[in-house]
Amino acid sequence: MSNCNNYEELGFAKIDVEREARTGFPEVIYAAGKTPAQVRDIFARLISHTDGNVFATRANSAVYEAVKAEIPEAVYFETAQIVAVNRRQSKNEKVIAVCCAGTSDIPVCEEAAVTVELMGGSADRVYDVGVAGLHRLTANIDRIRAAHVVIAVAGMEGALPSVLGGLVSRPVIAVPTSVGYGASFGGAAALLAMLNSCASGVTVVNIDNGFGAAYAAMLMCGVSK
Amino acid sequence: MSNCNNYEELGFAKIDVEREARTGFPEVIYAAGKTPAQVRDIFARLISHTDGNVFATRANSAVYEAVKAEIPEAVYFETAQIVAVNRRQSKNEKVIAVCCAGTSDIPVCEEAAVTVELMGGSADRVYDVGVAGLHRLTANIDRIRAAHVVIAVAGMEGALPSVLGGLVSRPVIAVPTSVGYGASFGGAAALLAMLNSCASGVTVVNIDNGFGAAYAAMLMCGVSK
Amino acid sequence: MSNCNNYEELGFAKIDVEREARTGFPEVIYAAGKTPAQVRDIFARLISHTDGNVFATRANSAVYEAVKAEIPEAVYFETAQIVAVNRRQSKNEKVIAVCCAGTSDIPVCEEAAVTVELMGGSADRVYDVGVAGLHRLTANIDRIRAAHVVIAVAGMEGALPSVLGGLVSRPVIAVPTSVGYGASFGGAAALLAMLNSCASGVTVVNIDNGFGAAYAAMLMCGVSK
Amino acid sequence: MSNCNNYEELGFAKIDVEREARTGFPEVIYAAGKTPAQVRDIFARLISHTDGNVFATRANSAVYEAVKAEIPEAVYFETAQIVAVNRRQSKNEKVIAVCCAGTSDIPVCEEAAVTVELMGGSADRVYDVGVAGLHRLTANIDRIRAAHVVIAVAGMEGALPSVLGGLVSRPVIAVPTSVGYGASFGGAAALLAMLNSCASGVTVVNIDNGFGAAYAAMLMCGVSK
Amino acid sequence: MSNCNNYEELGFAKIDVEREARTGFPEVIYAAGKTPAQVRDIFARLISHTDGNVFATRANSAVYEAVKAEIPEAVYFETAQIVAVNRRQSKNEKVIAVCCAGTSDIPVCEEAAVTVELMGGSADRVYDVGVAGLHRLTANIDRIRAAHVVIAVAGMEGALPSVLGGLVSRPVIAVPTSVGYGASFGGAAALLAMLNSCASGVTVVNIDNGFGAAYAAMLMCGVSK
Amino acid sequence: MSNCNNYEELGFAKIDVEREARTGFPEVIYAAGKTPAQVRDIFARLISHTDGNVFATRANSAVYEAVKAEIPEAVYFETAQIVAVNRRQSKNEKVIAVCCAGTSDIPVCEEAAVTVELMGGSADRVYDVGVAGLHRLTANIDRIRAAHVVIAVAGMEGALPSVLGGLVSRPVIAVPTSVGYGASFGGAAALLAMLNSCASGVTVVNIDNGFGAAYAAMLMCGVSK
Amino acid sequence: MSNCNNYEELGFAKIDVEREARTGFPEVIYAAGKTPAQVRDIFARLISHTDGNVFATRANSAVYEAVKAEIPEAVYFETAQIVAVNRRQSKNEKVIAVCCAGTSDIPVCEEAAVTVELMGGSADRVYDVGVAGLHRLTANIDRIRAAHVVIAVAGMEGALPSVLGGLVSRPVIAVPTSVGYGASFGGAAALLAMLNSCASGVTVVNIDNGFGAAYAAMLMCGVSK
Amino acid sequence: MSNCNNYEELGFAKIDVEREARTGFPEVIYAAGKTPAQVRDIFARLISHTDGNVFATRANSAVYEAVKAEIPEAVYFETAQIVAVNRRQSKNEKVIAVCCAGTSDIPVCEEAAVTVELMGGSADRVYDVGVAGLHRLTANIDRIRAAHVVIAVAGMEGALPSVLGGLVSRPVIAVPTSVGYGASFGGAAALLAMLNSCASGVTVVNIDNGFGAAYAAMLMCGVSK
Repeated sequence: MSNCNNYEELGFAKIDVEREARTGFPEVIYAAGKTPAQVRDIFARLISHTDGNVFATRANSAVYEAVKAEIPEAVYFETAQIVAVNRRQSKNEKVIAVCCAGTSDIPVCEEAAVTVELMGGSADRVYDVGVAGLHRLTANIDRIRAAHVVIAVAGMEGALPSVLGGLVSRPVIAVPTSVGYGASFGGAAALLAMLNSCASGVTVVNIDNGFGAAYAAMLMCGVSK
Repeated sequence: MSNCNNYEELGFAKIDVEREARTGFPEVIYAAGKTPAQVRDIFARLISHTDGNVFATRANSAVYEAVKAEIPEAVYFETAQIVAVNRRQSKNEKVIAVCCAGTSDIPVCEEAAVTVELMGGSADRVYDVGVAGLHRLTANIDRIRAAHVVIAVAGMEGALPSVLGGLVSRPVIAVPTSVGYGASFGGAAALLAMLNSCASGVTVVNIDNGFGAAYAAMLMCGVSK
Repeated sequence: MSNCNNYEELGFAKIDVEREARTGFPEVIYAAGKTPAQVRDIFARLISHTDGNVFATRANSAVYEAVKAEIPEAVYFETAQIVAVNRRQSKNEKVIAVCCAGTSDIPVCEEAAVTVELMGGSADRVYDVGVAGLHRLTANIDRIRAAHVVIAVAGMEGALPSVLGGLVSRPVIAVPTSVGYGASFGGAAALLAMLNSCASGVTVVNIDNGFGAAYAAMLMCGVSK
Repeated sequence: MSNCNNYEELGFAKIDVEREARTGFPEVIYAAGKTPAQVRDIFARLISHTDGNVFATRANSAVYEAVKAEIPEAVYFETAQIVAVNRRQSKNEKVIAVCCAGTSDIPVCEEAAVTVELMGGSADRVYDVGVAGLHRLTANIDRIRAAHVVIAVAGMEGALPSVLGGLVSRPVIAVPTSVGYGASFGGAAALLAMLNSCASGVTVVNIDNGFGAAYAAMLMCGVSK
Repeated sequence: MSNCNNYEELGFAKIDVEREARTGFPEVIYAAGKTPAQVRDIFARLISHTDGNVFATRANSAVYEAVKAEIPEAVYFETAQIVAVNRRQSKNEKVIAVCCAGTSDIPVCEEAAVTVELMGGSADRVYDVGVAGLHRLTANIDRIRAAHVVIAVAGMEGALPSVLGGLVSRPVIAVPTSVGYGASFGGAAALLAMLNSCASGVTVVNIDNGFGAAYAAMLMCGVSK
Repeated sequence: MSNCNNYEELGFAKIDVEREARTGFPEVIYAAGKTPAQVRDIFARLISHTDGNVFATRANSAVYEAVKAEIPEAVYFETAQIVAVNRRQSKNEKVIAVCCAGTSDIPVCEEAAVTVELMGGSADRVYDVGVAGLHRLTANIDRIRAAHVVIAVAGMEGALPSVLGGLVSRPVIAVPTSVGYGASFGGAAALLAMLNSCASGVTVVNIDNGFGAAYAAMLMCGVSK
Repeated sequence: MSNCNNYEELGFAKIDVEREARTGFPEVIYAAGKTPAQVRDIFARLISHTDGNVFATRANSAVYEAVKAEIPEAVYFETAQIVAVNRRQSKNEKVIAVCCAGTSDIPVCEEAAVTVELMGGSADRVYDVGVAGLHRLTANIDRIRAAHVVIAVAGMEGALPSVLGGLVSRPVIAVPTSVGYGASFGGAAALLAMLNSCASGVTVVNIDNGFGAAYAAMLMCGVSK
Repeated sequence: MSNCNNYEELGFAKIDVEREARTGFPEVIYAAGKTPAQVRDIFARLISHTDGNVFATRANSAVYEAVKAEIPEAVYFETAQIVAVNRRQSKNEKVIAVCCAGTSDIPVCEEAAVTVELMGGSADRVYDVGVAGLHRLTANIDRIRAAHVVIAVAGMEGALPSVLGGLVSRPVIAVPTSVGYGASFGGAAALLAMLNSCASGVTVVNIDNGFGAAYAAMLMCGVSK
């Protein structure tokens, strides 16, 4: 294990130890495609370089077991598929509304909401407010408007961000999900709808990318700094 | 020009003269890809076989000129791109709401609305009620609910039919338009959104197919018969 | 469990309890992507808000077991993958012809036919009348013509709705199926064919969406009201 | 201009002078993407190597003018976009039925029919027999059955070959056309439909490839030899 | 079980009992998407209507077991995935060359070759003659030229039919296979290549459709009749 | 011209006069697909409802002429294709870095930069800093880091946002452009690359949507409020 | 005009003046999407920073006129669409075979061949050797084998690189072209075929990217250094 | 088992025994889609025809077991999925840098690196140097520049080859990987990005094709010969 001045060499990975200084947040581990042992080793090294929270997304229970064996304080958010060492639980005053169209979108929402919380923000979960039952959305609109950033998660036709974008004065981050079948083509339909949103101010992340939406939302909360 | 018992042979076309008996409406000419002379000839023959309205869609001004020269009573609906001989102007009691998301969708709406009128229905035009300004839609919702069938025309993210589908108790026919750019891919984004609509009861026609939506709407008006 | 005046909050879902008043039919549960426990809970709440039929589509046997444990009168339509509490079995006089091209399309047909029946209509099943054996279709055409609405289900090249559309004077709802292989691309070939149907009056729903076709058909049956 | 023993070198082209011996027919010039002068030069060289018919497809009037200036006996089939020197007009006894769904498909049909005739076959043109007006097809089915090979040309949903494939005992060559709009995606919808045809014995060529279908049909006529 | 004059009704299927008269060959069962019991029942009925060979393609071993239990003389071609009752084994004088690019394409070839043989033709198997080792192809070219029709099976870049098309004077039927990975997109790359073949006379069937190619080849062998 | 309390009816458009109150910024006119006269009329009405800046994007010179004739103070930003009445030129302290990969991306950048300025922000243009000449980017990185939000515009492979996302601690809004050819498929390659960015915190807008990126950036600048 | 130590700032462009030192060749101007004046200015600055050849690709005659007015020694390769100042005409001993399948591919070949020559290599043009006339290819194979690198240019089915890859022991760079129609989808068919080539050692560049192939070929010629 | 003079016939395969003479390297077995027994048999025959290294790619452990049972000296590179008989371990002086963006890309890298080594080159593995942490790349750039050819492996947005292409004076072979999710569409996003690379000199192979990249790299190393 060699150690350059700005990354640590593990052979299969080069750990970016100055990322927190450079971008404001420590590196987050994307566990998909890595072995549990690889995630465990990266996790252990990151913990030694920061006193902030460290976590891995897209982590199944095998990953959790491997990390847990090495780092007993690790916890598992199962719906969110996140393994975390949650050392800094103080929330700042920024609120991220995490809204979704339907019950099936909840796992992606939880990836977003838990990420927000691990990065020090507050997540306000507003679930199952899809546009086919508009009164459920309007009944919750004041709560959504009170947030600093809105994350709008939807599969199928992905219309939620367009409707929200016209109702709020905050940035709306749209997250298409792979919920759907047939001509949803794995979430491509929702993705395209969101990219073509007629509501100004909507930006989009990859299909099912709850983490990315949360990370971007936290960056937006820091713009005034 | 030979004449079978159920179609008339023009060489380049076989005119379906028993269509009205079989399906309830006379054949309508799709002018795209036909020469003005071909449209003119088909028009002339159809007129001789029915006492109903005869019309051609996707007709540019050259087609209109050709038809007009032969059939002086032909009129041209320019925005709708329809040439018609409008002999039966009596409306029935059925109302079709033709709604669209934005001003750029109006040509497709007009193709639908004029078709409805030529087939004997009443078209109620409700334009520019896209979901990014929801109050414009809700302000008109009673009018839309009063229709027997709703045609919802939208480009870009194509969210209008999903929102309408949840608000009305009538069939909603969704028409995606090629309005948009970039990742709209010529209307494919709106088409996919509409096919994946979370609102039950929405059916879809081809991109920019205002005629098809109107024709289907008129058939639906006849279901109770 | 809070209770707004027009929806009931379950945390993971907001149950639309005024949908029946607004759109004419109670909410139907889409079970895919929901846990059996979630479906069971929504089922139970919906039953308490309506005296009509309640059912869940895309329900596997695990969902059925969960619902059955809570609601003993629940029944399972296995081919249709529908769990239902079937309280109102009176049929109205409207008939929906449910036609399909081949034997492999039957599960989608059954989703449509059972939905029709649960919503109070009569389903006339006309199976295996694909266009490569046209005499099978023409032998049944009078029966199909007698229906108020026609649902045409087909995979592969999806030609059945086009042929039917030219033979009947009723609305034809086309349902592409994922039956096929290779260049069917999961039903996309049939979907595109149906959207491009040369027969006027054909509208289309998502791939394998038998439920949506049935729901739309029942709405069409109410147009004259 | 060098001359290998089996091709002639023009610099921009290598003329395949033994193709007739090898495959039974002389090389045919594909004019698209070639300058009129290039087509003219290749035309002139091919004529000197065969006593059969020589022709160029996808030839606009500029190409025709260039060829005509050099080879006065050249003729132009404008709808087919073919320039030909038609020296061997004797027909053999083989008949190719060239059928199409609609009037707009005629240019592709003519490319096929003229190619058949230039290669020594008989083309029987059966136009505008699309499946939405099935009686027009059935009224002509005996004529189509009398052919040795059937070429079925259709745009939009491309259903004609599937229906024909179930009615005849001859090979059916399906030609998708770019006729259509929106979700026809330039003929892709018809192409996919034809590839997924439920009728056995249907083979497919490229979109708008009337020439290829005719060439293949003529090869099929020689199978018994 | 009702019995119309030209098909037999099984409820889940309508057996086309006059297909042999109409198209020259009895119906072939496509087993994919049918239950073993459904295939067995259709098999049994077809056998009673013809004295020719009856077979089912895309049949796994469960289908074979079900058919075998009812029809002891049924045999199973495992690589070809075909279950057959092979009553008429006389070969006619027509030879179909079944060529493939690589070893992985053999299952598709066998579907084609066994189909040829069950329909009364002779299959000449020429395997692993892909274009990256051209000498393997040229060493076998005389054998291929001796056939009446050539079936060219290839995955990956699908170049084999283009090369063969330039070397033989017989119809070439191209069969793309799903062999490949990454940008082969399940055989789409090979399919597109074959549709764009620069060699005239090549026609194409669906990805992995060995049966369709064989059926078409047998029809071509009958053209001279 | 009727006037509801929250929108003004022009027949072809419903002007959203309370948008500024609801979302913080007045409605912006998307001129594509509208006639010059329609844009002129909407422009005139919007001006009467706000004392802020009013502008139209995707406006060609014909649109500018029409607006200018009615509203003499209108100005034209030709590269940006924006017509504006620029009444409030005070800048706030927020800086948006508008970066692009190459010279051909400048029109999209200008749409973004002019929008930023019309909405009251400061645009810092950093052009031609594509990743193939990384030193051009690193030489300007301090300037980019000083901005509150970064807009990263790129065609072709769209790599700029990923590199920027790893170097700055501000939100990065990625704008794919249609610059490129061949397998760029009109900007789809850049779009997909940006959606798959390995750098956290990158969000994406539609192809060539400089306006949307600028609008979102201005919303982000207001998050701290 | 500022001047950093490693690039020169033109406002609309940052000229990479140390590229030659870094990568071995000076920057080449991609003229598409740039105004003639922009190309002219970049051209002029590049000339002042190198004594090597400077050129612009994808340059139409307007670009040539603008450059010529400023730099009289500029020459225009019209088929290649290249404007060049050709100061170092000495060839090195490396030979690049530039092969294409058909006459229509020649413009892409010329872009490649002229680039090779401007970068100091020798181009051996071997045109019209497509795989449907294999003898034309085999007659030239010794010449192709004598080259150090082979560029294989083909549209339609793109089979040439696969065949060449099996015949030579040199790197083969495949260039798909947009030559074709219908299911060639603008060159996508050839591109996919080349990416799936069964011949090892074939690498691929973008559709119509003759320049990129030539540049890569010249880099390969330097590998031994 | 017959034996032509230039290939050996196994029935299911024709072994290209003169490939080494023709292209410089013996045939390599692509194990995917072949049975373990087929791979074993081909392996055994190849070994008898060359004294060089013989290996099979895409080989799972079942393939290894089969080969091992027949050829005891066979070894298995598990991450690379390669079974090899490694008889000639002398390295030449050529170095191939095998770089990848992230840990998940390592299996593709290993396929490339092991292939390089089996073909007689030296592989320098530089892993986890993705563009979102640019300092990790720049810290290793001298090592990469020292290589003769650079293989750049990346999934997701596939930006690594573009950045590398601007930093080195050697050929860069880009390998897209299927690492990613959602809009990566199985590696298509990375593939498109690489094909559109703004860095000259980048060529591309199929998704996950580490073998092909390595083979091409070794050919490039021989260009000077």
